[in-house]
Amino acid sequence: MGLNASQKIIKNHLVKGKMIVGEEIAIKIDRTLTQDSTGTMAYLQFEALGINRVKTKKSVAYIDHNILQSGPENADDHLYIQTVAKKHGIYFSRPGNGICHQVNLERFGVPGDTLLGSDSHTPTGGGIGMLAIGAGGLDVAVAMGGGEYYINMPKIVKVNLRGKLSPWVTAKDIILEMLRRCTVKGGVGKIFEYVGEGVKTLSVPERATITNMGAELGATTSIFPSDDTVRDFLKAQGRVKDFSYVQPDADAVYDEEMEINLSTLEPMVACPHSPDKVVPVSQLKDVKVNQVCIGSCTNSSFVDMMKVAHILKGKTVNENVSLTISPGSKQVLNMIAQNGGLASMVGSGARILESACGPCIGMGQSPSTDAVSLRTFNRNFEGRSGTRSAKIYLVSPEIAAASAIKGYIADPRELGEPIYIEMPDEFLVEDNMIAPPDETGDNIKVVRGPNIKPFPKAKSCENITCGKVLTKVGDNITTDHIMPSNAKLLPYRSNIPHLAEYCLTPCDEDFPKKAKENGGGIIVAGSNYGQGSSREHAALAPLYLGVKAVLAKSFARIHRANLINNGIIPLVFENEDDYDKIDVMDELVIEDTLKQIKNDVVTVKNKNRNEEYKMVFNVTDRQRDMIKFGGLLNMMKENNK
Amino acid sequence: MGLNASQKIIKNHLVKGKMIVGEEIAIKIDRTLTQDSTGTMAYLQFEALGINRVKTKKSVAYIDHNILQSGPENADDHLYIQTVAKKHGIYFSRPGNGICHQVNLERFGVPGDTLLGSDSHTPTGGGIGMLAIGAGGLDVAVAMGGGEYYINMPKIVKVNLRGKLSPWVTAKDIILEMLRRCTVKGGVGKIFEYVGEGVKTLSVPERATITNMGAELGATTSIFPSDDTVRDFLKAQGRVKDFSYVQPDADAVYDEEMEINLSTLEPMVACPHSPDKVVPVSQLKDVKVNQVCIGSCTNSSFVDMMKVAHILKGKTVNENVSLTISPGSKQVLNMIAQNGGLASMVGSGARILESACGPCIGMGQSPSTDAVSLRTFNRNFEGRSGTRSAKIYLVSPEIAAASAIKGYIADPRELGEPIYIEMPDEFLVEDNMIAPPDETGDNIKVVRGPNIKPFPKAKSCENITCGKVLTKVGDNITTDHIMPSNAKLLPYRSNIPHLAEYCLTPCDEDFPKKAKENGGGIIVAGSNYGQGSSREHAALAPLYLGVKAVLAKSFARIHRANLINNGIIPLVFENEDDYDKIDVMDELVIEDTLKQIKNDVVTVKNKNRNEEYKMVFNVTDRQRDMIKFGGLLNMMKENNK
Repeated sequence: MGLNASQKIIKNHLVKGKMIVGEEIAIKIDRTLTQDSTGTMAYLQFEALGINRVKTKKSVAYIDHNILQSGPENADDHLYIQTVAKKHGIYFSRPGNGICHQVNLERFGVPGDTLLGSDSHTPTGGGIGMLAIGAGGLDVAVAMGGGEYYINMPKIVKVNLRGKLSPWVTAKDIILEMLRRCTVKGGVGKIFEYVGEGVKTLSVPERATITNMGAELGATTSIFPSDDTVRDFLKAQGRVKDFSYVQPDADAVYDEEMEINLSTLEPMVACPHSPDKVVPVSQLKDVKVNQVCIGSCTNSSFVDMMKVAHILKGKTVNENVSLTISPGSKQVLNMIAQNGGLASMVGSGARILESACGPCIGMGQSPSTDAVSLRTFNRNFEGRSGTRSAKIYLVSPEIAAASAIKGYIADPRELGEPIYIEMPDEFLVEDNMIAPPDETGDNIKVVRGPNIKPFPKAKSCENITCGKVLTKVGDNITTDHIMPSNAKLLPYRSNIPHLAEYCLTPCDEDFPKKAKENGGGIIVAGSNYGQGSSREHAALAPLYLGVKAVLAKSFARIHRANLINNGIIPLVFENEDDYDKIDVMDELVIEDTLKQIKNDVVTVKNKNRNEEYKMVFNVTDRQRDMIKFGGLLNMMKENNK
Repeated sequence: MGLNASQKIIKNHLVKGKMIVGEEIAIKIDRTLTQDSTGTMAYLQFEALGINRVKTKKSVAYIDHNILQSGPENADDHLYIQTVAKKHGIYFSRPGNGICHQVNLERFGVPGDTLLGSDSHTPTGGGIGMLAIGAGGLDVAVAMGGGEYYINMPKIVKVNLRGKLSPWVTAKDIILEMLRRCTVKGGVGKIFEYVGEGVKTLSVPERATITNMGAELGATTSIFPSDDTVRDFLKAQGRVKDFSYVQPDADAVYDEEMEINLSTLEPMVACPHSPDKVVPVSQLKDVKVNQVCIGSCTNSSFVDMMKVAHILKGKTVNENVSLTISPGSKQVLNMIAQNGGLASMVGSGARILESACGPCIGMGQSPSTDAVSLRTFNRNFEGRSGTRSAKIYLVSPEIAAASAIKGYIADPRELGEPIYIEMPDEFLVEDNMIAPPDETGDNIKVVRGPNIKPFPKAKSCENITCGKVLTKVGDNITTDHIMPSNAKLLPYRSNIPHLAEYCLTPCDEDFPKKAKENGGGIIVAGSNYGQGSSREHAALAPLYLGVKAVLAKSFARIHRANLINNGIIPLVFENEDDYDKIDVMDELVIEDTLKQIKNDVVTVKNKNRNEEYKMVFNVTDRQRDMIKFGGLLNMMKENNK
């Protein structure tokens, strides 16, 4: 029985477990990437491992998120990342060099390798046949330290692409069609592997648009096999040596299959406020537009930019529209600066922003109140733009540029003759904004500005775990409740003491105060505790505040893992009625903790009420070890002794 | 007796008063400009005048300050300004079109005309022989409504420029030499008029660098006579029709004279934290640099940018330096995008920011903690960069670019052969980002987002003025104390109700609360009350809170004028000991107010203590009228009846 491309890469990297769907496997990670919003914490965690040099083939630290720099925090973070990278063997992509996923594709991606990145759009690398997965900062820190990455073996979904795209229909429309069909939950636990005759018709940047936005399907990752198109791309990047074919066997078997006929697709739009609210552009004609933003890791390649430049050339951006363009990388920006493309954009009145995430992550360019904003980005969640009342539509660069000129959502097919931009035979390669690490790092001093605070570390598990119930929250508490994140708090991702002041405050204003006064304690919660974003700060802030255990009716999967990673014990009520019996400030105790955590059921005593509660603790042996040692980092250090 | 150029323009525009130094004169304003940070309030004030169309020759509204748009407030302000401009006959320079002073020079400035701008660097226009003055938003609103502008007749200082600049010495070094000699207070009540053989050697952008930064001398304005160089510049801008000579008579008399020998100047640097802490660059060699920022209304012309591009070409920005470049206008950006200059910058690793004020006003690019930042800007006050501990040095673009490459403060003379950039015979003229006003404005709806709040208006003076003493503050209270301004509050310049919540809070946390609870009242202050920035929000917020009078030992001149402009009575203790007699929450009353304000001394009764205080009220008749009618706007409306 043949293997598909995904299985081949997994097999080549399998360290533990069996490739059976749903079972836990561990894979070796060849490469890592971080960005600055998650990177500060990832490197603090890496430092905590006590390993001098990264053990990956290559690790790269990018600065692309917090580049507005309103206040010293961002620049302090950049300087910390720059120096910690230099010391420990990590390449540093300087601010202005571009968006991590775009630059990684251009300069670092290698077909057949595994890439773990502390950014959810890491799957972009699947465009050149990498197995590229987004993960939390701690996972990336562990991978840099040589540790394997644990996931449950995903289902591999065959996406058969037939035919070829019609004029003015783009790769963006393919992934929007996928979202229309599968929804934002349709990819959970899956890898989408794109195959079929249609693949040959798509360039590497087009493929990368699709794998990038596969993240919105909730997929583990997405991948295109590595073929001659990838070889030509790497050759044009001066990296043909990095090329190898990664192809599914002729008799490859997939867990699921689906098909898209490219020939029948139309230009599509994802409507507010979800990437899967997809309709053909023809259904939205005459919607007045206030803002158009072109760029992001989804659509900021050289070809994307040149198409936009051609549409804008000699035109003027509609008087009622603000058009911003963020080229994806210094390479892209330099090429369009040299060939006149940028001049066409500027001439039309486009506002050229830095090569960075920018408005896609709400870092600037918040639209006006109630505005309609068309964006070539990947997410259009309510409020993400910084303007809660704004209506964000996700579109291709072609729709975006056409609409910027017209002033309303426009069908690019109205523009007439299609534009074909050739992929360059040779990209402008100039890596002078990528600082290599120091040879040994011995003489490099890591610079820690006042925003870089020591990282809270769990202690190894004590045999008697006790504490007061600090707060009791209801069902469906999200990580946004546990650790709010907004433009005000985002610059403090490396400053847990500051963030902790806001921990759980949307539910219980006094939580940080109570935690401090009682020297930590225990959280009691309803069902689905910790849903939403995977941010590990929702575990780190409670850890900093001395939280030892969380008792809940149920947990969201990733947050439970984050708690365990940080040595906090997550316990599930065997009898949900017990939830009602506990009051805030009750003193709870887990006796014989070290013995009890070996079992699937743990007994918690309520000293105030003289009651006992049976709590389910159904985790892997590895996770039991993590609790014992006080989290993943401590376990890694223990294992490295 | 002949006239100098300044006197000629003033004479041509004199409406009231005599041209005797120190005496109040009123001049007619031909043109106005606003930017978005001050413009929102200026247009709210213009609307309050009830005049349908501006009465100037031409008025232009620029968007260049708040263009980061972190949250909807900025975009809401932009939209308000865009629509209010369209309605009332004002040209609108769209975001991305450039910095007001640069664009005004390129596209709107006219030699011999008067320009009033709601930005302190409006004197840039003196580079083409305009009398260009910075003022508060209300003054600009009044000028748009056809009202004259009142100032005390300034001293005219002849600055005789001899010789010519040595290679690598620049216009920036001339104005830094002026600052070194005269200090930041040396220009108060003066106009600097540059004459002599050296003038011919300076291009229009070089002259504009000098007049721009004349603001840092505290000068009313600075001016270069209009000559053939100005004609050539306007011709290259396609505006030769706007040209006329403005020259001093051969026997012109000046109030003061000074001389600079250009041949002996060296490249200069203004050290932290004042623009007048000027030393030759040779004294600062080897100071390590973390950040370099090129741009701002002082140094972002085409020639500035091309010099920088030539220095950067083929080089790489030092690994420890972040270099940002903000071209001054769309014209400049487009020209360097077309001729390869921009590509050289990008290739070197420079971060290209929007054509706007950017880091000069702390809007982004705050350096890291304790960083050394070299900037081609005009101000280096402590904390202005957004990083209080940063050390900002002001330099020429040549020093900036050389230092960015070297990584330390570098003498550009080390670069060898000087670079000469020719002024273009023809600039790239493309005004498609300047939206003209509507013909009549009748059908234009002004869009007011939730951040555009009704503007507080004073009422006509009542005959009994009474109120409780809301707070009692000490000496040297600045407008920063009265109305704090920072990155957090700057987006709310059009939202006085929001700003008022912070009024005087650095001195008295409960001031806004007390004012509201007591329905307004009276402020008691020590000497030099209202020093610092001229911001009129320091009068508007108290007005909103119901403050009727301020009793102080003495007032800063501009703040006192702002209080009167807004109908708040400023009174000075005749006997300073009376200050000590008054307590917070004492009830004060001015009986027969309408009669008393006609006199130089006003009696204030303290009802709690049964005391009377003699207060000095030494103002012009026009100001007495303003108090009577309830501020300048009400008086204008009364006069227009």
